[in-house]
Amino acid sequence: MARQLKLGAVLMGVGGPGQHDVWTNPEIPGDASVDIDWYIARARQAEAALFDLVFIVDSAFITPDSPPHYLARLEPFTLLSALAVTTRNIGLVGTVSTSYNSPFNLARRFASLDVISRGRAGWNVVATGDGGTAANYSLDEHYDHPTRYARALESVRVCQGLWDSYEDDAFPRDVESGVFLDPSRQHRLDHSGEHFRVRGPLNLVRSPQGHPVIFQAGDSEEGRDLGAAIGEGIFTHHATVEEGLAFAREIRERAAAKGRDPQHIRILPGVEPIVADTDAQAREIEDRRRGDRDFTKDLAQFGRPFGWHDFSRYDLDAPFPDVSALGHNNFGSQTATIVRVAEEEGLTLRQAVRRFSGPPPSPFVGSARTVADRIQEWFEAGALDGLNIHVTVPSAFTRFTDEVLPILRDRGLVRSAYESTTLRGNLGLPVPPNVHTVARDQAPRLSA
Amino acid sequence: MARQLKLGAVLMGVGGPGQHDVWTNPEIPGDASVDIDWYIARARQAEAALFDLVFIVDSAFITPDSPPHYLARLEPFTLLSALAVTTRNIGLVGTVSTSYNSPFNLARRFASLDVISRGRAGWNVVATGDGGTAANYSLDEHYDHPTRYARALESVRVCQGLWDSYEDDAFPRDVESGVFLDPSRQHRLDHSGEHFRVRGPLNLVRSPQGHPVIFQAGDSEEGRDLGAAIGEGIFTHHATVEEGLAFAREIRERAAAKGRDPQHIRILPGVEPIVADTDAQAREIEDRRRGDRDFTKDLAQFGRPFGWHDFSRYDLDAPFPDVSALGHNNFGSQTATIVRVAEEEGLTLRQAVRRFSGPPPSPFVGSARTVADRIQEWFEAGALDGLNIHVTVPSAFTRFTDEVLPILRDRGLVRSAYESTTLRGNLGLPVPPNVHTVARDQAPRLSA
Repeated sequence: MARQLKLGAVLMGVGGPGQHDVWTNPEIPGDASVDIDWYIARARQAEAALFDLVFIVDSAFITPDSPPHYLARLEPFTLLSALAVTTRNIGLVGTVSTSYNSPFNLARRFASLDVISRGRAGWNVVATGDGGTAANYSLDEHYDHPTRYARALESVRVCQGLWDSYEDDAFPRDVESGVFLDPSRQHRLDHSGEHFRVRGPLNLVRSPQGHPVIFQAGDSEEGRDLGAAIGEGIFTHHATVEEGLAFAREIRERAAAKGRDPQHIRILPGVEPIVADTDAQAREIEDRRRGDRDFTKDLAQFGRPFGWHDFSRYDLDAPFPDVSALGHNNFGSQTATIVRVAEEEGLTLRQAVRRFSGPPPSPFVGSARTVADRIQEWFEAGALDGLNIHVTVPSAFTRFTDEVLPILRDRGLVRSAYESTTLRGNLGLPVPPNVHTVARDQAPRLSA
Repeated sequence: MARQLKLGAVLMGVGGPGQHDVWTNPEIPGDASVDIDWYIARARQAEAALFDLVFIVDSAFITPDSPPHYLARLEPFTLLSALAVTTRNIGLVGTVSTSYNSPFNLARRFASLDVISRGRAGWNVVATGDGGTAANYSLDEHYDHPTRYARALESVRVCQGLWDSYEDDAFPRDVESGVFLDPSRQHRLDHSGEHFRVRGPLNLVRSPQGHPVIFQAGDSEEGRDLGAAIGEGIFTHHATVEEGLAFAREIRERAAAKGRDPQHIRILPGVEPIVADTDAQAREIEDRRRGDRDFTKDLAQFGRPFGWHDFSRYDLDAPFPDVSALGHNNFGSQTATIVRVAEEEGLTLRQAVRRFSGPPPSPFVGSARTVADRIQEWFEAGALDGLNIHVTVPSAFTRFTDEVLPILRDRGLVRSAYESTTLRGNLGLPVPPNVHTVARDQAPRLSA
């Protein structure tokens, strides 16, 4: 079958800098972020449109200035498990931090979600960029950037090892012979690494996907390296097809250098398409959104990637302030981008706040046909394997599913029915073999 | 309304010493412990019988000798959240360890479950008795007994504080005025204790129950003290009505001494009633179960509460071995009971294995009328507030729900319809007031 676009739906991903007025939209209930019925309805809407997955963003540190829908929201494991039994086909991808969850608990909860959903679990691995989080977890300070990425990689490796605790034939459950477990098919991990020591085995069968699908989003140097090492889905964002293509090539090359098959990576930019009757009308909607922004709130939000630094103390129209004393290199990739762009383009603080508040400029704005054309262009150029669509306003999402998708479907670029009952199957990703089964199967050949 | 029995249903609680052949029962699918549909069906069966709650036992450390259905089982948060959206009234109580989960994550996941279930979450607080667990969590050795109970208490106190992060009126979400959050109703915790430091606030609204209901089961000195301090439901076991009554009195007295209302505690012994057409037939079933036991497997299981000590090295018919070198006082209450009884009664190892393997003798064995009479006797004596019934074999559970419950209902001892949509409401427990709201409401009176 020809290559087709993979589609994700980001539910309540409304925490971008300055998206603090989204809640006033009459289509979005004020309590949407804590209403399981709202999530179920959105997941079913995405499933009806044959999307591959829903994606839940997350964080664990808030202040009174946090984006409204992030002040109070459902926790990913409990949320996704509720979606697992109220949907049938769509993948369930949750953001969970390796900095503040032990690998044994991570492995167990994702495997349990995979079993409950019958093979639809995915994990967006994050190391947590917000330094304030440490104070919720008995730590004096957050792990520094290299350490938290090293922990993330080791944590995922531990989980992968734990997910292989049982081979597929571990449980004969044969009443006649009285054999429930074949103990030769149960394996301890006995991992002893720099950051974690984990004995195992995991107390769960190998899940339907073997391993839940691993997603990754960080865009720093360490983030890209982690994505190349473990990411089967990569969430990203680029303003032009050239940048997108360069990123995709770089990730695949890095992955190949690590011995991975670069075709087993799905690159899914996060986008909020704006679809209107005409291109001009769509551009007007985009412009109006930018013009409506509340600068004071944007300024308060602006400090978040700098550890909630208070930028209101500076002259707004002077050159962007020197923030090196904050140790900003220890923050995430968003921080580094802001500092770099502000310096390269000589922005004032006011200009920087305007530039980096609100959703980033979308390449996918126009009539349904224009948006479909643009998606096809990026897809055929190799700049993306699919899209991770923000499902913030239901009617805007409906314009995408009901107007853009049919055009892409006519062109053979999106599916007409789910190919598989698992997320891996729909994404065209293989089930990882169990390392212990592989080792035994290879043993005779090695000795021959 | 007159006091009525509260009813829990223990799902797949088949890990008692020596229950290793339960899986061969043709009514229980071999993969029941990893089949969400099996759990949903059992929860709905209990809900149809107007039970207050389902209860999930748990652990995180296994060996090849672990009870079969514990070798691989669904994780409580994901399991209970799936039940939350496939049932409507029944409470959802999960066992989760304070030794191997951070309080911030505990508070968040239980609150999220409470929001998703619209007020039906309960937490069975355990400190984890199985020392092997430490090796799955990067620790050289398990916390000692006093330390893990001190951590359990502090962890629950932190969670209670985090659950009060927002007052009920924290979110005006008023589009007209543009006010989403009233920041004066969001509170940091700033807890700094012996074991945990947690800043808060929790990023979730105060849940429908205010705080999920707290259950507790440990029967050691520290366990009873913890139960008296925090337990709103107490899971226990006693062989006679006198022992049950003495235990209930002690817990209520200890609770009162800590300033709690002793009437806000529900004591729910875990029992597996055996109901047959006649008392004699029921006794026969019980005897047959004991006679069918596999001594070799019982002996292997027997070491579990002693840190998986290998008892097969001892002479079975010599006096019970001296295990003081194992530091057995550092294990749980079950260990202490075995050592005490073996010494008091001068048991051999073989006798001790027989005594403590398999389900403990049940006081609730007989015809439906006999079992109903016995339950009424214990209830009216004050030895229990209800029962936590093991739902292992579905047809045995049906005999209880369809034959015993109607008799108790005729006597006005169990409900005819749910009184409430929340677990607290059905258990007759009050919603804890938010400490910040109380402090403000009291302020004017104090200054008057």
